[in-house]
Amino acid sequence: MVIELVNVLGLDIGGANTKAAFLKTQDGTVKELRTSVEYFPIWKSGKEQLPRVLEKLKKGLVDSALDGVGVTITAELSDAYMTKKEGIHHVLACITEVFGEAPMFVLDVEANLLLVKDARSEPLEVASANWAATGWMISQLIKNCIVVDVGSTTTSIIPVIKGKIAAEGRTDLEKLQNGELVYSGSLRTNVAAIVNGIPVQGRVAHVSSELFAQSGDVHLILGNIREEEYTAETCDGRGKTRREAMARLARVVCADTDMLTEQEIVEMAKFVYYKQVEHISGGLKLVRERIKTSLQEKIVVVVTGLGRNFLARKAAENAGFKDIIDMKEHLGAEASVVSPSVGVALMLASRLEGKTVRWKQS
Amino acid sequence: MVIELVNVLGLDIGGANTKAAFLKTQDGTVKELRTSVEYFPIWKSGKEQLPRVLEKLKKGLVDSALDGVGVTITAELSDAYMTKKEGIHHVLACITEVFGEAPMFVLDVEANLLLVKDARSEPLEVASANWAATGWMISQLIKNCIVVDVGSTTTSIIPVIKGKIAAEGRTDLEKLQNGELVYSGSLRTNVAAIVNGIPVQGRVAHVSSELFAQSGDVHLILGNIREEEYTAETCDGRGKTRREAMARLARVVCADTDMLTEQEIVEMAKFVYYKQVEHISGGLKLVRERIKTSLQEKIVVVVTGLGRNFLARKAAENAGFKDIIDMKEHLGAEASVVSPSVGVALMLASRLEGKTVRWKQS
Repeated sequence: MVIELVNVLGLDIGGANTKAAFLKTQDGTVKELRTSVEYFPIWKSGKEQLPRVLEKLKKGLVDSALDGVGVTITAELSDAYMTKKEGIHHVLACITEVFGEAPMFVLDVEANLLLVKDARSEPLEVASANWAATGWMISQLIKNCIVVDVGSTTTSIIPVIKGKIAAEGRTDLEKLQNGELVYSGSLRTNVAAIVNGIPVQGRVAHVSSELFAQSGDVHLILGNIREEEYTAETCDGRGKTRREAMARLARVVCADTDMLTEQEIVEMAKFVYYKQVEHISGGLKLVRERIKTSLQEKIVVVVTGLGRNFLARKAAENAGFKDIIDMKEHLGAEASVVSPSVGVALMLASRLEGKTVRWKQS
Repeated sequence: MVIELVNVLGLDIGGANTKAAFLKTQDGTVKELRTSVEYFPIWKSGKEQLPRVLEKLKKGLVDSALDGVGVTITAELSDAYMTKKEGIHHVLACITEVFGEAPMFVLDVEANLLLVKDARSEPLEVASANWAATGWMISQLIKNCIVVDVGSTTTSIIPVIKGKIAAEGRTDLEKLQNGELVYSGSLRTNVAAIVNGIPVQGRVAHVSSELFAQSGDVHLILGNIREEEYTAETCDGRGKTRREAMARLARVVCADTDMLTEQEIVEMAKFVYYKQVEHISGGLKLVRERIKTSLQEKIVVVVTGLGRNFLARKAAENAGFKDIIDMKEHLGAEASVVSPSVGVALMLASRLEGKTVRWKQS
């Protein structure tokens, strides 16, 4: 008996980035994985451009007939749409336009893959379910843990108990309330949303409420990310050198690089960094508090996403966790920054194969 | 002896709005005042458009030869410029290009009018001195007070003692440290910079760090401003109806108008409003603390700007002040929302007349 290759594409349609993972599996094993990210700020570039972006990802990744496309969507929150419902319907229409020939499935907040028609009739069930893809994938590898996935824009905190996702919040709103979503990330977070004030030259300065600098500037200044990892637009449209990032951060306290020294700006960056870690740590503590009765044994934290080390790991340490696992060791660096698209692809491959396909780096 | 009319133009070149006041005075008395505001977000519309905006203001207001142009600048902070110095030089070049024929003066942070050549050689002395124009104008009318000027974007808190401005901070940075500048205003303040979390349906939700909604939405929802007073761009490019503002505010907690009721969104708006008042009140308390030894008598608060009643007055009440004077009673509603441009025009007219010209509404 010849076991055929299964070819699936996982899509994670975010508001700022569109991510794709093309996966070939055979008999429960991953044979090949290719991933790609397109920076596509939908509220700025225009939602009518989405099919073009999807075409580009398809062309760059897919080299054989697709057995299925798995989709997770967060772009519906973008203000390109008046309501989430409108957003889900539009994204599904674009995907159908581009991948019409392949069987399509949409992830819901219960980590089920729905048919497109069912997703259309219950759009809020499939809104912002990307964390469920990551949670499912990791739950296949580590049975008891809390996943901290720090992306460019947001952080998902996903409890996994006895191999099952144990998230309590279904919507983003519920997750913002219970700590499972912290709207803070490695690159795109407005510094004015992280801190109210920053000590400068020995005295706390309240901050400007403009979008003068973002977390990417802070992490570039501190060497947490390299220029090529800063894959978001800058606030002033200028470049991604350390000097340009310092000018942006100085502006947050209405200063500039003539008024502040390099060392003073680095001290500002450290303070913002500390507050961001504290913020993520706060979410993690809330989640731990809730699950600790059901999870008697020692809780492991699994860190993933672009900010897995300088934000997720630091937040876990800050919350007192000792056992911290870097998903990069399981997934590789490439897949660990696009976990939801890989996760939804693995889920779909498992469904098509009729057995669980686990990702292990070869 | 015939005393000639003096014709002066006051310009307040902000980062988001360019304001102008054309003033005719005679023998220490205001004969005519016309004001105008152009919404001109310099970082977005492009700094090379500034001369065109100035031409438009000139054409709309100035009907006779100018005896002088008085200028105050805050646009240098915009990220259209790499440093403040670059910004001041560029704005001065644009003004010279458009008003080259008239004698020009630039306000500094000591409330002096400098010649353009002196401003060019000390650009940081004239950066963000607009509060000094407002302070000077009010100090001519009320000898002991704290002025709270809430504009679209920022709040200036200016102590006046014995008829003199008694501000301690010279730069915006110093003012962010000592409470004299609170970077929060009536229209353009990102809600994510006002609050970290908002109670929704009985539980605090952390907020999204995007620019999903701004203070103008909050104040429109609560009826603090009317649609026509909402003179800033909206965050999503949609309109200024209450319903559209509610959709924007719902998005701040990753929700929408399908998920939250009108009443729930109104409760959110009230909470953000309360926090914004508290924030401005905090600056006011810091300033009061510093001056209370030099000002023994009861301190009067003078409120001005677009947010003079729903933000400045509320902040003063929150800080326990009893005597609150609305500058609208002295200046009229029109002039009280463009105080710095009127102030710098009055200062210049006084200088040209050789006697103090006080503004009293006729």
